[in-house]
Amino acid sequence: MEKESKGRGEKTISSAVINRMPRYYRYLSDLMEAGVERVSSSELAAMLGITASQIRQDFNCFGGFGQQGYGYSVPRLYENISSILGVNEGYRAVIVGTGNLGRALASSPVFRKRGVTLEALFDVSPALVGQTFCGFSILGMEEFETYVAKSRPDIAVLTVPRAVTREVAERIDRAGIRGVWNFTNIELHLAHAAVQNIHLGDTLMTLCYSLREKSGPEKG
Amino acid sequence: MEKESKGRGEKTISSAVINRMPRYYRYLSDLMEAGVERVSSSELAAMLGITASQIRQDFNCFGGFGQQGYGYSVPRLYENISSILGVNEGYRAVIVGTGNLGRALASSPVFRKRGVTLEALFDVSPALVGQTFCGFSILGMEEFETYVAKSRPDIAVLTVPRAVTREVAERIDRAGIRGVWNFTNIELHLAHAAVQNIHLGDTLMTLCYSLREKSGPEKG
Repeated sequence: MEKESKGRGEKTISSAVINRMPRYYRYLSDLMEAGVERVSSSELAAMLGITASQIRQDFNCFGGFGQQGYGYSVPRLYENISSILGVNEGYRAVIVGTGNLGRALASSPVFRKRGVTLEALFDVSPALVGQTFCGFSILGMEEFETYVAKSRPDIAVLTVPRAVTREVAERIDRAGIRGVWNFTNIELHLAHAAVQNIHLGDTLMTLCYSLREKSGPEKG
Repeated sequence: MEKESKGRGEKTISSAVINRMPRYYRYLSDLMEAGVERVSSSELAAMLGITASQIRQDFNCFGGFGQQGYGYSVPRLYENISSILGVNEGYRAVIVGTGNLGRALASSPVFRKRGVTLEALFDVSPALVGQTFCGFSILGMEEFETYVAKSRPDIAVLTVPRAVTREVAERIDRAGIRGVWNFTNIELHLAHAAVQNIHLGDTLMTLCYSLREKSGPEKG
């Protein structure tokens, strides 16, 4: 299951390292907001609940970022990790499916905080198309291909009902959008686009598992 | 970061195995719906994109579930995994924070599909309290402790603004709710309750990283 990817050097970076980077980014955003200038790997380690050597090892995959014994400059570390994660690339996103979850995402700071600009919402429902939500006019799916050809968004956020997921995902892929943030609970693998499959329910089940374990064996 | 937990035998089961179980559950739910009776570990492996030996190893942590050479009975496997994950425990949940995300979760099938019953919504906004959403009357937070003492829900879904997260989380913990499904983007560790921290933005960043890698080095 471990995918590998090339870093800026020629080293191969494991997906485990990549998956930890957004967490570093979150903590560094907080330090930036608090105006902290320097942080040591042991301070970071204490905040994140991992070892300092794990942190140094992760950062070394991208060539370091710090001088031995001086800790890290918070603004520089933040800048470096932002750049690795593409926060400064100006990626643009559209939401496909403007139901409750699509609207919740559209109104949340999740895009802006990661440097992604949300630029359009799509739906098929005549009750929604043409309405305005959070400053976006909701567009009909019959305009989708024309819009994508003209505006070239980078990311489609997929929040459509399960029954139409595969069909809509293939339309997105054929239209040439390069990334799909998929909330549909169907695991997608597309010919061209990169996909991040989100399974909210999986984490609810993991929580239920820990409740069950806490309450002792064979409660039910 | 690997936590360990006791299985039904006396073996210790790694969090990596636990975290894979909800995914098995999803695929088995689909097989159940399709009326499939038997499945081999290699068929499951092909569906999930992992090795058959990984699957057998995972299932062996819980004592097996199958006979060598006969594959697995889908209904029995589904039943066993449901039971491990606490799907049949009748857990009950409340949502604390009835903003866009809280409402999106309240109107989604995510609880029902995992055997969890949603039973109340809470908020502080006078504009929301007393209103009805998805069949639930939205309760004010001043009623929270009384409600919890009387109804003893198992899970609190935390979808409040960042600024009040820690305060509300501690109220939930003190009130005696045993599990918190935390969508607030602040990593919580509570004195008593188990917590699943959800960071939607992390997966958006991982997607951005893969777009950046795909487009070649140093695009921006």
